Amino acid sequence: MTVYVAPLKDMQFVLKELAGLDQVAKLPGCEDASAELVDQILEESGRFCSEVLAPLNQSGDQEGATWDQGRVTTPKGFIEAYRQFVEGGWNALEFPPEFGGQGLPKLVATPVMEMRKAANLSFSLCPLLTCGAIEALLLRGTDALKKTYLPKMIEGSWTGTMNLTEAQAGSDLAQVKAKAVRHADERLGEHYRIFGQKIFITFGEHDLAENIVHLVLARTPDAPQGVKGISLFVVPKFLVNADGSLGQRNDVHCASIEHKLGIHASPTAVLIFGEKEGAVGFLVGQENHGLEYMFIMMNAARFGVGLEGVAISDRAYQQALAYAKERVQSRDLSGGAKPVPIIRHPDVRRMLMSMKAHTEAMRALAYVVAAAMDIAHLDPDAALRAKHQAFADMMIPVVKGWSTETAIELASIGIQVHGGMGYVEETGAAQHLRDARITTIYEGTTAIQSNDLVGRKIAREGGATAKEVIKAMRVVEGQLAKAQGEDMAAIRAALAAGIAAVEDCVAWIVTSYATDIKAVHAGSVPFLKLMGIVCGGWQMARAALVAQKKLAAKDADASFYQAKIATARFYADHVLAQATGLRNTVVRGAAGVMALTEEQF
Amino acid sequence: MTVYVAPLKDMQFVLKELAGLDQVAKLPGCEDASAELVDQILEESGRFCSEVLAPLNQSGDQEGATWDQGRVTTPKGFIEAYRQFVEGGWNALEFPPEFGGQGLPKLVATPVMEMRKAANLSFSLCPLLTCGAIEALLLRGTDALKKTYLPKMIEGSWTGTMNLTEAQAGSDLAQVKAKAVRHADERLGEHYRIFGQKIFITFGEHDLAENIVHLVLARTPDAPQGVKGISLFVVPKFLVNADGSLGQRNDVHCASIEHKLGIHASPTAVLIFGEKEGAVGFLVGQENHGLEYMFIMMNAARFGVGLEGVAISDRAYQQALAYAKERVQSRDLSGGAKPVPIIRHPDVRRMLMSMKAHTEAMRALAYVVAAAMDIAHLDPDAALRAKHQAFADMMIPVVKGWSTETAIELASIGIQVHGGMGYVEETGAAQHLRDARITTIYEGTTAIQSNDLVGRKIAREGGATAKEVIKAMRVVEGQLAKAQGEDMAAIRAALAAGIAAVEDCVAWIVTSYATDIKAVHAGSVPFLKLMGIVCGGWQMARAALVAQKKLAAKDADASFYQAKIATARFYADHVLAQATGLRNTVVRGAAGVMALTEEQF
Repeated sequence: MTVYVAPLKDMQFVLKELAGLDQVAKLPGCEDASAELVDQILEESGRFCSEVLAPLNQSGDQEGATWDQGRVTTPKGFIEAYRQFVEGGWNALEFPPEFGGQGLPKLVATPVMEMRKAANLSFSLCPLLTCGAIEALLLRGTDALKKTYLPKMIEGSWTGTMNLTEAQAGSDLAQVKAKAVRHADERLGEHYRIFGQKIFITFGEHDLAENIVHLVLARTPDAPQGVKGISLFVVPKFLVNADGSLGQRNDVHCASIEHKLGIHASPTAVLIFGEKEGAVGFLVGQENHGLEYMFIMMNAARFGVGLEGVAISDRAYQQALAYAKERVQSRDLSGGAKPVPIIRHPDVRRMLMSMKAHTEAMRALAYVVAAAMDIAHLDPDAALRAKHQAFADMMIPVVKGWSTETAIELASIGIQVHGGMGYVEETGAAQHLRDARITTIYEGTTAIQSNDLVGRKIAREGGATAKEVIKAMRVVEGQLAKAQGEDMAAIRAALAAGIAAVEDCVAWIVTSYATDIKAVHAGSVPFLKLMGIVCGGWQMARAALVAQKKLAAKDADASFYQAKIATARFYADHVLAQATGLRNTVVRGAAGVMALTEEQF
Repeated sequence: MTVYVAPLKDMQFVLKELAGLDQVAKLPGCEDASAELVDQILEESGRFCSEVLAPLNQSGDQEGATWDQGRVTTPKGFIEAYRQFVEGGWNALEFPPEFGGQGLPKLVATPVMEMRKAANLSFSLCPLLTCGAIEALLLRGTDALKKTYLPKMIEGSWTGTMNLTEAQAGSDLAQVKAKAVRHADERLGEHYRIFGQKIFITFGEHDLAENIVHLVLARTPDAPQGVKGISLFVVPKFLVNADGSLGQRNDVHCASIEHKLGIHASPTAVLIFGEKEGAVGFLVGQENHGLEYMFIMMNAARFGVGLEGVAISDRAYQQALAYAKERVQSRDLSGGAKPVPIIRHPDVRRMLMSMKAHTEAMRALAYVVAAAMDIAHLDPDAALRAKHQAFADMMIPVVKGWSTETAIELASIGIQVHGGMGYVEETGAAQHLRDARITTIYEGTTAIQSNDLVGRKIAREGGATAKEVIKAMRVVEGQLAKAQGEDMAAIRAALAAGIAAVEDCVAWIVTSYATDIKAVHAGSVPFLKLMGIVCGGWQMARAALVAQKKLAAKDADASFYQAKIATARFYADHVLAQATGLRNTVVRGAAGVMALTEEQF
């Protein structure tokens, strides 16, 4: 069993020094989010995640969720852990008090979510999907739907799912075929009957909650073809009586669960709707607008998956670090007769620094984006709301794509630190790689994120938001130029090269999108990686500047701040160093991508 | 079940046009290796691998090897496949005819080995270890040992193992504790009794062969401490009678096998030597020289594992390509109402090109190194032998480290091409990642390779061999400068930047090694990656030049050669583009690696 300890110190540093918790706490409705309360919440959450969720991570992986005759059993301990999760109110943090939520800002919910994901990714997927379903209902549910479902879902005693994918409709939701037929009867009044098969439904069936509220994309008989003919429905596992009690079992059943590379404790269900009389469903919002609602909710879900990248990276880092301090092997290069802990060997240290630096940069970027979502949602100033919304919209595919792609690399490095023991499943290091591997796929693959980034988020507005970000990064570059010391100079040089690379690419994307869209898409994933690297470097540079100030002011935490500067320096030399190469790949690389005919492969 | 088809065309191209098969066939003893015979061997091998080994790859993974009371059972079909492998003479290709081998050059054995590894990596590990043990006996075995063991081992009816690792002695063989005590009795004469426990012994116990010949590192009671007190012993599972028949069971037993991330069909054994009277062992060479012999053999084993990187990359590519041609999803960016096969989408194509380009570059580099090993071994000219030995010695850690690190990335990309289906184990894509993940660990981790590269292979000789390689690459750069067309210009520019990056790093390594060895080791893995990328680019540039000549001469295979140029172009823009960044990381990156104290992590 491997240990997880929430990185409270870095989380609090990022919240307060980089993401502007004090500003967020001034937003209307967020007044409760004082530094003291936030500290308490994070500590309490850290304890819960370390003591309750983390110990079930490896056992859950080994046992896995199991299916028998349509019933799904989660691994030992999950039911009790979920009960404690609900009782602790952990599902309710960011939702409106009127439905039982705690109304805390996204920025505060974010580290709590990170901890839960780091402690037990499989477990965390159940609330992730519940939150997605809650957002859909908050956004477009009728008052009746809200009243019936939201209090239980926000509490967590009912969970939610998102039913998008069908065998022929994965990334391409235009191909959704599930049917929804208008129906009315005395018992239920106006509703729909849903028929079809959905696959890849996370926690589509399980034994953690009394009821499961499926949100389902389907087509009405007269709907237009393609994405403009998809509607969104609420389909509960058990129908809900007028008094709120659970009624009849709905006509939706779990036909099987997948045998996957990782996240074994999270059941991935095939759901069959309408084998008999049709599953009873209730329309969310208007007919034919389902995909539009999904897109609005998707930001939250994609951000959540991006955070999974941060979380697994940190978990893998903690495990690798513990092993590197404990495992004794080979002499120190600088001399001595005895073998030493492997953390003394330069390449082990390089691997650990890479894990640490990437994780801190990804965390900082994610939290900064969370704060922007709060401002975009709550600030009284409409212009400021719009500005932060545009920033969040642009950065969410970066947080999602970059953090998850990086998490796979870092989890793999975590195995490498362990040497041969990393390849043995009992060690637990390999699980992080297996678990991380899904994160670049679900909630939109990295290509889907990157196409969204270059198309909707950059080209469509002529790069306006991207140029704002470049401007903000240049301000930090200017501050670095005035800062003292070799580390700051190195960080500045690397950041400057990174900003120039982003600027070149943005200009190229804006001009090329209309003339050669395939070339832009051919370079979109390398561009997303570049954006992640440079925006992560921007945050690390900000962190280094704060740290230098704290050190100058003789802050008691000197060791933490010195480490922050060294970590930012490492990031500059080892990560930002890739920026110019990526720029060249984006701008020049399309010819080679598109040259072959299909037969030439 | 996924299909494997040997890439005969590219293999033959590399053998003939890049690795100089015709020159190798002129070496003494290699006269049989005519182009016609080699074609036949490759075709026959391809058939065997496709029809016999590949179909057992996924079933072998799912079933796994199993342990019961010291006996190990391989998955269904492995015994019969191994019988056919032995009957086909596939184990004997490169070994001397006097012991029943076919005396073919390493260069010819290399593609055959690649096919076997691509078809079924787990299966291929049994002969890989047998070959290692054969090399040890050829190198330093007494005539009696050779006569007793080699014919059966070269035939393959007995297999071999390498017993190095102990729980406290992984990368650090100085810590080996297994004991070897001199002993003599009437029945066996002079021999040793071996006591100790070895872990991570690939095919240390199994049901494929009549006998298993363990090569074991152990210490005699009077041996010096550290690496200079380790001796090498032959310890057969069954003792061999004077007439060659199998005698008594030796005192070596399999206590368990590991539960691993991948290579499930390859049993990784814990072996206990000497639980009773001591395992009977016979000294190989002289006492206390065991590690020296291991180092000589290690080149072959490391090269073999490097080839595993090439092989798995190709297998993962073939599977991803087949899926990308078949899976229909989303419309073509250039228009049309219907969804198209995903190979038409730019990012899918980028992923496939990355898999293809890397695999071809790694294959070319590996085969060129194989040819150098043949020349180093057989050329009548001692100076030429030495030159090629130095080249092979320098490149083997690159082939091992770069090809395996890259294989992990490519196998992961292979999953990504499959989207959600890639994460479902039944698809088979995930197995390649799980299998590939061991290759950067066993036979020396990437750090071990890179430290060997910067230390023994570069710094120790002042970079002499590296400078020869740089000179050879500059010749190709000059040829590209004279070649026509935009693709050649792009390849030349990228290669030139790559060569400059290598040159800077070599100069820095040579000067820094004496003054700041930790800094050199801190950058050694990025440097190994740089060397791989640039030397792979060198081979792709050579391939493009050959292709351009063939096209000018109106060769019938125009499509293949056009694809080769486009692939080299892709490699230049997407892979060589990383060179300058890596150079900066190597030369400037040490400060950040070493800055933190252990407590600051």
